[in-house]
Amino acid sequence: MADPAGPEIQRLIQLLARLPGLGPRSARRAALHLIKRRDQLMGPLADALAVANERVVSCSCCGNVDTTDPCTICRDARRDPSIIVVVEDVSDLWALERAGAVPGRYHVLGGVLSALDGIRPEDLAIPRLVERASAPDMREVILALNATVDGQTTAHYLTDALAGLPVKVTRLAHGVPVGGELDYLDEGTLSAAMRQRTTF
Amino acid sequence: MADPAGPEIQRLIQLLARLPGLGPRSARRAALHLIKRRDQLMGPLADALAVANERVVSCSCCGNVDTTDPCTICRDARRDPSIIVVVEDVSDLWALERAGAVPGRYHVLGGVLSALDGIRPEDLAIPRLVERASAPDMREVILALNATVDGQTTAHYLTDALAGLPVKVTRLAHGVPVGGELDYLDEGTLSAAMRQRTTF
Repeated sequence: MADPAGPEIQRLIQLLARLPGLGPRSARRAALHLIKRRDQLMGPLADALAVANERVVSCSCCGNVDTTDPCTICRDARRDPSIIVVVEDVSDLWALERAGAVPGRYHVLGGVLSALDGIRPEDLAIPRLVERASAPDMREVILALNATVDGQTTAHYLTDALAGLPVKVTRLAHGVPVGGELDYLDEGTLSAAMRQRTTF
Repeated sequence: MADPAGPEIQRLIQLLARLPGLGPRSARRAALHLIKRRDQLMGPLADALAVANERVVSCSCCGNVDTTDPCTICRDARRDPSIIVVVEDVSDLWALERAGAVPGRYHVLGGVLSALDGIRPEDLAIPRLVERASAPDMREVILALNATVDGQTTAHYLTDALAGLPVKVTRLAHGVPVGGELDYLDEGTLSAAMRQRTTF
């Protein structure tokens, strides 16, 4: 079987196939799409990747990714410095920022505890969280972890790790998603929503 | 709503979202995936794109994409120069090459005729095909177009355009896909397979 595309195009396809959501077939389609839109897409994407590769750093304070260290959020003076929102991953940070729901700053754990995947407390940014939470004037640590088994295990572990400190440890409310229909929700969510009902 | 990622990351996400198969959400996931795998993936992909952007050209003979002009296939002396396989797009050329099924060279039309999309014969590489097919010693033009309405309309148009020339015009066989189950095939395919049956 001959190799239809040259080694340069083959290499591009192989690398594109390693992106989440793309397989070998869609990577070929993406490569061809890029080649056909050289000036509008392939050149700009090559530049954007080179710039990001050169300039993006991990924030030494919270673990967010940005082109400055500390990141834009950690340097934002309008944010309450006494509140830390703990998230599993940068994608969760982005989701909360899109919602504009966070009054304070973040702390990215870089994962959750998982016996199955062998992720232990020392693999995550937990010591640094305890250090940040120990600072004077710190009032609240909000655990915004996923409502999965591993996420909740990690939340319990963090609650214990922060127990000795004079900070309030809270977590996101469970309940009915906005726009959600009761009929489609699981029993756990419905009973949590009922238990944590609020006055109208 | 604050913008969580800096402008460099935003730009990367916007460009990734323009790839086929990726939407805004999966582009964010891909960007984060790249940022986390900077040395193994983001750097190499930036380089591969820059190389492809600089070196990939369209073959002036057949319309294939390669880093040389004429392309590797057009320069391949082992291929029968008297046979031209007409395809709609480079992706079809790649598919036929993976199958190793083509004895000759290619001609990429760059699309098919479509009244709906306003694609006329002069928008495709048809004059160049007629020119190539008019060369001395040319024996056969194989129409390997998609079995869609537009593909078949284009095949009929090409048959007319090539009618005056001393070349045989053929098309791919219709029939049962290898590994396919009869029960799942449409009536058109089944009756074509029956009509064009071969001796066992």
